[in-house]
Amino acid sequence: MQQNIWLTPEGIEDLLPPQAARLEAHRRNLVDAFTAAGYDLVLPPIAEFTDSLLTGTGRKLALDTCRFTDNESGRMMGVRADMTPQVARIVSNRLKPRSGTITRLCYVGEVLKSRNNKAKGSRSPIQVGAELFGHQGIASDIEMIDLMLSGAHTLGFTDVSLSLGHVGVVQRLMDLAQLDAANQNELVDILKRKAIPEYQAWLTGQSLSAPLANAFTALVNLVGDAAGVLSNASQSLAGLDTQLDQCLEDLNLAVDYFGQVQGFEIHLDLADLRGFQYHTGLIFACYQADVSSILIAKGGRYDRVCSAFGADYPATGFSIDLRNLIDNLADQVADQAPVYTLFEATQAWLDQVKQLKASGRTVIRAYQQQDIPVGAEELVAQAGQWVIKIK
Amino acid sequence: MQQNIWLTPEGIEDLLPPQAARLEAHRRNLVDAFTAAGYDLVLPPIAEFTDSLLTGTGRKLALDTCRFTDNESGRMMGVRADMTPQVARIVSNRLKPRSGTITRLCYVGEVLKSRNNKAKGSRSPIQVGAELFGHQGIASDIEMIDLMLSGAHTLGFTDVSLSLGHVGVVQRLMDLAQLDAANQNELVDILKRKAIPEYQAWLTGQSLSAPLANAFTALVNLVGDAAGVLSNASQSLAGLDTQLDQCLEDLNLAVDYFGQVQGFEIHLDLADLRGFQYHTGLIFACYQADVSSILIAKGGRYDRVCSAFGADYPATGFSIDLRNLIDNLADQVADQAPVYTLFEATQAWLDQVKQLKASGRTVIRAYQQQDIPVGAEELVAQAGQWVIKIK
Repeated sequence: MQQNIWLTPEGIEDLLPPQAARLEAHRRNLVDAFTAAGYDLVLPPIAEFTDSLLTGTGRKLALDTCRFTDNESGRMMGVRADMTPQVARIVSNRLKPRSGTITRLCYVGEVLKSRNNKAKGSRSPIQVGAELFGHQGIASDIEMIDLMLSGAHTLGFTDVSLSLGHVGVVQRLMDLAQLDAANQNELVDILKRKAIPEYQAWLTGQSLSAPLANAFTALVNLVGDAAGVLSNASQSLAGLDTQLDQCLEDLNLAVDYFGQVQGFEIHLDLADLRGFQYHTGLIFACYQADVSSILIAKGGRYDRVCSAFGADYPATGFSIDLRNLIDNLADQVADQAPVYTLFEATQAWLDQVKQLKASGRTVIRAYQQQDIPVGAEELVAQAGQWVIKIK
Repeated sequence: MQQNIWLTPEGIEDLLPPQAARLEAHRRNLVDAFTAAGYDLVLPPIAEFTDSLLTGTGRKLALDTCRFTDNESGRMMGVRADMTPQVARIVSNRLKPRSGTITRLCYVGEVLKSRNNKAKGSRSPIQVGAELFGHQGIASDIEMIDLMLSGAHTLGFTDVSLSLGHVGVVQRLMDLAQLDAANQNELVDILKRKAIPEYQAWLTGQSLSAPLANAFTALVNLVGDAAGVLSNASQSLAGLDTQLDQCLEDLNLAVDYFGQVQGFEIHLDLADLRGFQYHTGLIFACYQADVSSILIAKGGRYDRVCSAFGADYPATGFSIDLRNLIDNLADQVADQAPVYTLFEATQAWLDQVKQLKASGRTVIRAYQQQDIPVGAEELVAQAGQWVIKIK
C-alpha cells in the first residue's frame, strides 16, 4: 500500500506523455481558432478573493469552490471553479469598453472543484472558452454557436449535433402566470428534475387562464427534433405574448441557420433549465453525435453576468473542458522520430545539433551508446563529416 | 472606493490583451524548444494532497503553500507552490523508468504562493521548466544549462550571462571539518545571508586543521568571474579531498564549455547556497546581462528529489517564471489587421469567411456598419462578387 500514499485526490489527475502533448496541441488549436475570429486572450489568475469569484453566481459555484485564507490580507480566497466570473470581472472592471461596442475575449486555464461529481464533468477541468460582451440580439448567440461548432471541428469531432434551449420561455410563462417566488422555485426545481408526474400535480394545483394552462401543459412535451418542436410551439405557445413570441422567433432563426443552412442535427428542449440561475436567453451545447453522445461544449446567454460587478454588458459565451475530452481527442500528426547524438563539448557538434533542430527535428543527447536505441537515427562524425546513420 | 472591491489579491494579477497573447506565444515557443530536445510534456494538477506536494521539500515550500481540506477525503490539499515536487512524484510513482535510463520531462502551469514576496519573484508564477532524471554526471548538468540558455534565447534575450555555483563544495568542506548538525546549520545560515563579519567570527571559533582553515578562509572570496575564481580555488581548495576535487573539476568543465566554447560571461560563487536544503550539486541561473540583471531562469541538481517518493533517480532541472518576465518579453510579430464583415446567415458568406480564415486572416463579424472601424478591411459582396475593400 506504500505507493497509495502518493495518489492524487479523487478526480484530480496527472496528464502524462503522450496525453499531455495531445492536450497541449488541441489547446493551441482552440485558442488559435478563437483568436482567428477576433477573440482576444485573457489569463485571469487561478485564485482570487471569493468576493469576486462567487459574486453573482449561484450556490453551486460556492459549494464547488476550494477556499482558504489569504495570508496577505486575511480575506477569503478561492481557487476558481469556473473562469466565467473572472472574465466578467475583467470586462467590467479592467477593460470597461464603451457601451454599444462589442468585446470578444477567450480564455484558457485550469480550474478546480471541491467535489468530485463525474456526471458533471471532471473535477479539475482545463477550460477553454470564449465570451462576447456588448451585443444583445440573437445574432451574437449565433456567432457564439458558430464558434462553438468550429471549436468542435477544430478538436476533430466530425459528427456533431447541436442542442438548444431558451430559458426565457419558462421565465416568461411564469411571469405571465404571475407565479410568486416560492412557486417559481418549486416549478424550476420540478422541471430541472424532469419530474413529469410532479409537474402534472403542480399544474393541477394552479389556477391559470385557458391559454396559459394549455401552454404549460404543452411545455414539457416541447422536446425533441428542433423543427418539430418549433412547429408544435407555434400552436401551443405563439401569440400569448410578444416577449414569448420573440423567444420563439430567435429559436426559429437559429434552427433555420444551423439546421437548414449548415445541416446540423438540432435537438431542442423548451423546458430545459440548465443554468437557470444565471442564463437569461438562448442556451446551447454540442455533442459528438454517436451513441456515446459526449458533451463537447456548452454555453448560453447571461446578460446579467456583469451586473454583479456594477456593469451592464449583455453577454453570451461557451466553454470546453479539454481534460474531460482527452480520451476522445486524436494525437496530432506524429512527429518524425528523434535523432540521437553522443554529446561532444565542441562548437562543431553544437552547430550540427542547432541546424538539425532548425530543420524541425527533435535531437536527443546521449551519454553512452546504450542511450541510443537500436534502429534509431544517430548524428555522428565520420571521416570529418557529420552524417545521420541508422544505429 | 467601490471598484476596489474587485481588486485581485496582492501579487496576483490578470493578464489582459495584449500581454496574455504575448505570454501564450512565448509559452508555446518554450515548450516547443524543450520538446525539440526530447523533453516530454507532463501536466500535473494545480492542487493535490500536501503529503505529496510538501514531501521532501523544505520549510519554505510549506509556508508558501495555500492549503484547504479536501471535501472528498477530509485530507489536507494544497495549491502547488512549485511544480518540481509534482514532476518528481510523476517520475517516481507513475512513470517508474528502468534504472540506468534517462527520462526527460518538461512542464508548464500556473502555481500559487501564499505570500507575496516580490524579491522572490511573482506570487502566481506561470512556470515552464524541464527536468532530466536518471543521469548523475556533469554531462547532464551541462545539457540542462544548454537547454536553459536556449530557452533564454527562445524568449528573445540576446545578452545573457550565466551564474554557477556548486553546493557540494560547502557540503564537503563541512563534512571534512566534521561539523555537527547544529554547527552546519549555523554556517549555512551565515553563508546564505552572506554575513562576512559573522563568518569571520564563526571561523575563529572553530578548531580546524591548517589546510581546512585556509580553505574556509578562502571560501567567501571565491566569488566573481568564473575563470578567476577557479584559478584561486585550485590553490586554496584543490588537493584536500577527491570529492572536493571532483566538484572543482565539474565546474572547470562547465566553465570551459560555456565560457570558452560558447563565449558566455560566467559568474561563479562557491559560497552560494541557494536551495541548499534540496540541491546536491551544480546550481545555475541565467540573467539578462545588462545593468537590470533580470533573472531569466534558475535550477540545479537535486539527486535526492525522488527519494521522498521512495525512488532513486538522480535529477537536474530548471524553471522559468513567464509571468515575472512578461514586461521583458517582446510581442510576437504582429498579425495582419483583421478583416471585418457584416454577418449574413448564408452558406455563401460562411464559405467566404472560412476561406479567409484558412488563408490565415482574422475575420471579425459585424452586426452594424458602426462595428467596422473606418480604414479597416471589409469583406463585402459587390455585384455578385465577394471582395475585400477598405471602409
